[in-house]
Amino acid sequence: MADTWRSIASRKQEERASRIPHAWLLPSSIDPNRHDVLDVPRESGILSPAELRLTGEYDATALLAGLGSGLLKSVDVVTAFCKRAAIAQQVSNCLTEIFFHDAIARARELDAYFAKTRKPIGPLHGLPISIKDSFQVRGYDASLGVAALCFRPSTSNSALVELLLSLGAVLYCKTNVPLTMMALDSHNNVFGRTLNPADRRLTAGGSSGGEGALVAMRGSILGIGTDVGGSIRVPAYCNGIYGVKPSHGRVPYAGQAIGGPAGSSKLAIESTAGPIGVSVRDCELLLRVISDSDAASRDPDVVSQTWQEQRALSISRSLFVKSQPLRVGIVRTDGHVTPLPPIQHFIDEVAHTLSSHGSRIEVVDLDIGTLGAQCLKAFNGIVSIEGANNWFDLLEKTGEPISPWLSTRLRRRPQKSVNEVRSLQAQRTSLLTQCLDIWHEKGGYWNTSDSRARRGERSVDVIICPAAPHPVPPIDRWNSANYTSMFNLLDWPAAVLPVRKFQERDLRGEVGGAEALNGWDKVNRELWTKVDRAVYVGSPLSVQVVAPRLMERKLVESLAVLEKALEPLREKDLNSKSRL
Amino acid sequence: MADTWRSIASRKQEERASRIPHAWLLPSSIDPNRHDVLDVPRESGILSPAELRLTGEYDATALLAGLGSGLLKSVDVVTAFCKRAAIAQQVSNCLTEIFFHDAIARARELDAYFAKTRKPIGPLHGLPISIKDSFQVRGYDASLGVAALCFRPSTSNSALVELLLSLGAVLYCKTNVPLTMMALDSHNNVFGRTLNPADRRLTAGGSSGGEGALVAMRGSILGIGTDVGGSIRVPAYCNGIYGVKPSHGRVPYAGQAIGGPAGSSKLAIESTAGPIGVSVRDCELLLRVISDSDAASRDPDVVSQTWQEQRALSISRSLFVKSQPLRVGIVRTDGHVTPLPPIQHFIDEVAHTLSSHGSRIEVVDLDIGTLGAQCLKAFNGIVSIEGANNWFDLLEKTGEPISPWLSTRLRRRPQKSVNEVRSLQAQRTSLLTQCLDIWHEKGGYWNTSDSRARRGERSVDVIICPAAPHPVPPIDRWNSANYTSMFNLLDWPAAVLPVRKFQERDLRGEVGGAEALNGWDKVNRELWTKVDRAVYVGSPLSVQVVAPRLMERKLVESLAVLEKALEPLREKDLNSKSRL
Repeated sequence: MADTWRSIASRKQEERASRIPHAWLLPSSIDPNRHDVLDVPRESGILSPAELRLTGEYDATALLAGLGSGLLKSVDVVTAFCKRAAIAQQVSNCLTEIFFHDAIARARELDAYFAKTRKPIGPLHGLPISIKDSFQVRGYDASLGVAALCFRPSTSNSALVELLLSLGAVLYCKTNVPLTMMALDSHNNVFGRTLNPADRRLTAGGSSGGEGALVAMRGSILGIGTDVGGSIRVPAYCNGIYGVKPSHGRVPYAGQAIGGPAGSSKLAIESTAGPIGVSVRDCELLLRVISDSDAASRDPDVVSQTWQEQRALSISRSLFVKSQPLRVGIVRTDGHVTPLPPIQHFIDEVAHTLSSHGSRIEVVDLDIGTLGAQCLKAFNGIVSIEGANNWFDLLEKTGEPISPWLSTRLRRRPQKSVNEVRSLQAQRTSLLTQCLDIWHEKGGYWNTSDSRARRGERSVDVIICPAAPHPVPPIDRWNSANYTSMFNLLDWPAAVLPVRKFQERDLRGEVGGAEALNGWDKVNRELWTKVDRAVYVGSPLSVQVVAPRLMERKLVESLAVLEKALEPLREKDLNSKSRL
Repeated sequence: MADTWRSIASRKQEERASRIPHAWLLPSSIDPNRHDVLDVPRESGILSPAELRLTGEYDATALLAGLGSGLLKSVDVVTAFCKRAAIAQQVSNCLTEIFFHDAIARARELDAYFAKTRKPIGPLHGLPISIKDSFQVRGYDASLGVAALCFRPSTSNSALVELLLSLGAVLYCKTNVPLTMMALDSHNNVFGRTLNPADRRLTAGGSSGGEGALVAMRGSILGIGTDVGGSIRVPAYCNGIYGVKPSHGRVPYAGQAIGGPAGSSKLAIESTAGPIGVSVRDCELLLRVISDSDAASRDPDVVSQTWQEQRALSISRSLFVKSQPLRVGIVRTDGHVTPLPPIQHFIDEVAHTLSSHGSRIEVVDLDIGTLGAQCLKAFNGIVSIEGANNWFDLLEKTGEPISPWLSTRLRRRPQKSVNEVRSLQAQRTSLLTQCLDIWHEKGGYWNTSDSRARRGERSVDVIICPAAPHPVPPIDRWNSANYTSMFNLLDWPAAVLPVRKFQERDLRGEVGGAEALNGWDKVNRELWTKVDRAVYVGSPLSVQVVAPRLMERKLVESLAVLEKALEPLREKDLNSKSRL
């Protein structure tokens, strides 16, 4: 290929820059070196006060209420988010493909439809939704930030893209990813690195890092990420927002750009698509409208199950009649990498707050320390079946180097044999079976000496555990992904729920005197011992909440209950700055 | 190994024979050469009149009503079925492992439980259920009729075995299978061949052939088969009984003896377990109690969805309010093997009868002729990934020969590579996506010139198609499995619904003058041109009914509606002999 990666990247970046109208470029008065850029949209003068309100003061559910009733015009909402996304791009480098022009044209059409019929075209009428670069949108690249894949526009839409459009959504941009999408810091050679807008010294996470930064900036009110090891949850964690990784079969994933040979996921672990947003109810909204749509007609892997047909949380059916309490299992460590002191304290605090909440929530301690390392081993085996040969082949085509985070983690390896693949799948099935016991008291993973009559017959509704064994780390320092990837291996739906900010008081505590458990644990400790801890202050602290397979409804209904119960912790953050 | 297969088989057959009490051996007055042995239980004098009634006049639902209310004792029901199974074994060679003794002991325990508590232990309280040999029952072999696997008793129960026991069922025998379980006539070298009790010249089908023959003899009122290409539906078809192959994830399959390396199914097509029975409502019963149980805690692949949470047929909710009609798509050919004239006429007759039924059923013609051959190719590729090396290795251990049906179909081949496996999975996904269009009018597979307003928005609830392109054939003559295996490839639930018997009038019609479509089609024609057709008279004619993935509830609810609507066809069979 005559082109080298540098010239391709440079052309691609020029193309991207050309799609931002001149009037939306930041004034030179904005300090390019500040750490926190969340207020830049307000300071820039690019958005009108009305546009600042539209993008800053509503969640998607509220915007849809306005759009669906005709109180808001899609063109106003979409234009406002295009402007704010353009700003987000300039300060956090979160976008890849930009199609503001198409989006505004579509918004006008939707407004015309509404003006004519006085009803919305679908449940997402006029709502701008941002999507990860790996979704295919006809006419635009899905390059995944790989030079060899640039300037090859998609010829068809991914199933979810078609579905969202059919429901009335307006797509206006795609968001940045790391090289290979198997990294947890979003850097690639074509688009560069996405930065965390709350503190550009910290990682924005990955692989849906562009989505995370864009939503944190409120350059998008609702985004779609994908997750095969943590790629929705890690950016949600890093950016203090909400993210739900569903089980496979809940949200259409067909027609995704995967950068590798078709059929790979069937031998390995299925990546899934899910919402990244600013409220629990927005995540629920997205999952609900997809469940109530014809998604199963568009992707053969989707389980046809309306929201009504999905398992509800018994507590939520009525708050006024006596119901089962929400029973929450607390997992403090995966047994492989011990969470740093602030994470330990934070989980203790969460457990304590929930325990003290009253009779509607019951907390039990789970000890799954024997399973974590096994899950990690099986996960690592399965995701390396192809040996990254395809990625290295793509890089070699244009002489592209590997990204920093990956440089110590990814190398070309021989593809595994069919016998090895089969054996890995058998290991996975065995672990899946074993892990079902976590949910049930009689399974042996509960730390309980409860003597109640029904002992042994109880189950937990959801599990709360760390999303990572560390706070949001500096750029390229994200360590073990086992706290998230475990739930991809198990195919359990898992969400990140932001709780409060890291405070000065969280700086206390040292790692124990005992030796590190292993190399990963050692590296993790360095995030406490070899980092200026002050960098963590003000970063978000979130929990991961996990439900049994395909119980997304139960999961998001639990999130709402938990968020309410954990409000006292958020209220302590009086000194935290508003992000609107 | 010092033992050869012959001595192992002989010891195994002796062991089996020794487990039938002397008093239950057939008197010498029974003609060993008769074709139809269905009346042997009545003639044998082994069962009391009460036992003949228990085994002959109730379905499982009716028996459970008696067992659950205390009107019937489990020990009486179980003893009666043990006797009748012992007879079935002697005339059709349908059993492998026999544990009548354990079963009667358990039945007594259940009766004692009921006597003490006045309530059933579970929804299957005291009901005898037969299971295919591939299920593991602690203490008994799961040899699959392979000499090298004999005398290696299972050390744990399959998940479904544990579940059925926990629901109150009584297991009393396992049933015969063909070598490799990938054959459609149930012969193996250890247990021999299972015969069709209605006509021992015809095949009993496979691979759940023992189950088919046993249920046809009413030596079992409800059996569990497994199906990866037709293995529940083919024996149901051959024996004129009911069988439902669910989608993967509906009924626990974990812990099955598969004869091959663990993890194989994850690369290929998942086999599924389902009911073989004597009524639609029994099939529904089994699927319902499993759905409403803790099945998902026992097998990680099971989708946790109660019966209530599964999609119902809208028509069944109330027969008194205006509802959507049941819309049935008729598929007449897979485009690969043209059904023989009697099957064509039968499907025409079924379509016509349904069309004439009234406003509650709507019939549309589907043409999927372009898809059949593609499905077969993908299926054949996927099921031959391992190249049968494992089976041939097992046979070589004891010098076992291959079974007749398999001798022209199975040979040792090199195991496929990971790239080939991946490519096959990609082909499968592509076909699955394409086939979703079959359900919807706008998908392009409907033969319709309907001009109604909603045209293009309609879907069919279920599909009716042949289960085979031929009637029940003579032994070892079952031809293409594509009419059944297609729905394993697609993972759509599919059932066999017996409609009527093959009559003299069905003997009319010749295969067309045009050339055969291919080798399979040619062999199929020979089942009409090179067979004494008279053998078909009196054999059952059944349709296959298919629903979208994981819609087992909708499927069995449709079966009930269809059975009722097709009653006029059954009523024509006045001269047919009762099987009770």
